[in-house]
Amino acid sequence: MLLSGGLDSSTCLAIARAQRWRCHAISFDYGQRHRHELVAAAAVAGAIGVAQHLVVEIDLRSIGGSALTDTIDVPKDRDEQQIGGGVPVTYVPARNTIFLSFALAWAEVLRCRDIFIGVNALDYSGYPDCRPEYIAAFEQLAAHATADGGRWRIHAPLMELNKAQIIARGLELGVDYGATHSCYDPGPDGRPCGGCDACLLRAKGFAEAGARDPLRRRFR
Amino acid sequence: MLLSGGLDSSTCLAIARAQRWRCHAISFDYGQRHRHELVAAAAVAGAIGVAQHLVVEIDLRSIGGSALTDTIDVPKDRDEQQIGGGVPVTYVPARNTIFLSFALAWAEVLRCRDIFIGVNALDYSGYPDCRPEYIAAFEQLAAHATADGGRWRIHAPLMELNKAQIIARGLELGVDYGATHSCYDPGPDGRPCGGCDACLLRAKGFAEAGARDPLRRRFR
Repeated sequence: MLLSGGLDSSTCLAIARAQRWRCHAISFDYGQRHRHELVAAAAVAGAIGVAQHLVVEIDLRSIGGSALTDTIDVPKDRDEQQIGGGVPVTYVPARNTIFLSFALAWAEVLRCRDIFIGVNALDYSGYPDCRPEYIAAFEQLAAHATADGGRWRIHAPLMELNKAQIIARGLELGVDYGATHSCYDPGPDGRPCGGCDACLLRAKGFAEAGARDPLRRRFR
Repeated sequence: MLLSGGLDSSTCLAIARAQRWRCHAISFDYGQRHRHELVAAAAVAGAIGVAQHLVVEIDLRSIGGSALTDTIDVPKDRDEQQIGGGVPVTYVPARNTIFLSFALAWAEVLRCRDIFIGVNALDYSGYPDCRPEYIAAFEQLAAHATADGGRWRIHAPLMELNKAQIIARGLELGVDYGATHSCYDPGPDGRPCGGCDACLLRAKGFAEAGARDPLRRRFR
């Protein structure tokens, strides 16, 4: 289970647990400016319950090319058209491919054949590695890449849900969204900036779900 | 260009250079017990000539599952049948998938569309991620994984060569194999152990190519 500590991956974990999977969570300390999400990942892993939580250090700063890992500013206060238009500068080149590769390696060691990832194609249409074709291609690769070959399954249960639907599903399952983290450019204490695409999509999602974001209470 | 500093990747680099490619080399400090190969990678990059050499730190020890990264002994003095039989304990789960993912990320930042990898299917038939089907699956994945999509090419010019043919090709191109490194379990000064599968395959390759390994002179 790829677990960033964000709203999507936390909901994805809750869905897998509700389906009775025993989950091993993997997070990455990759030089992200929103490193605070790792605190959230640990809190979420503890609250929802995992067999094990592994944090792997990898250096994506040396590769750069993204506002999340490089000296590029995180865009703020963009409107819906801007957020939906093309690949944003917060796209980290090949990030999900790198993350899934590590998950594949760990799954091979653990002798698991199922990997969960909380991508969804609707709200982040600008990210190529969040689409169903991409997930299918990774499943194909996994079958050829591993020592015992055979069938691998990459589960993406949020693929066809929008943010409001994800939140509604998570609330049904009792996810404490106050423990999650979405902001790309938080303060040192984890306070969300309120203006980056991730904050804006989160706020819109809660509004459309008719729910109140408990994170706003925490940082009032 | 994935460059480990080994015999294969060094020859692969020489072939790419002979084909007039401008090469950016990427190596990984991944917790391998044969970390000395990074010294070789830098020497080879300098000798053959690259536009840039990037060493990325990633922690594969936390994932384990291999004699190269875990507390599992490297097997010694195995015969040909043992070396050829099944996936060896020196197999690092999903290693080439992880390495190619980073190469893909960097290539996307550099705006390259061609990645070179020195895998060959003949001498390491036990490693699943060295086969042509695997390379083809990664090309498919890359097309779906990246921001600009389109055609990617993973070049594996050694795929159909045996070790002796690789060495013969490299010697033609002037590769100094005294700067390369193959051993899985070297001494602190880089001295090859002489008994691991990599040392044995290297010795066999030089013998069949009718050439003398300059590394043996270095460590006489």
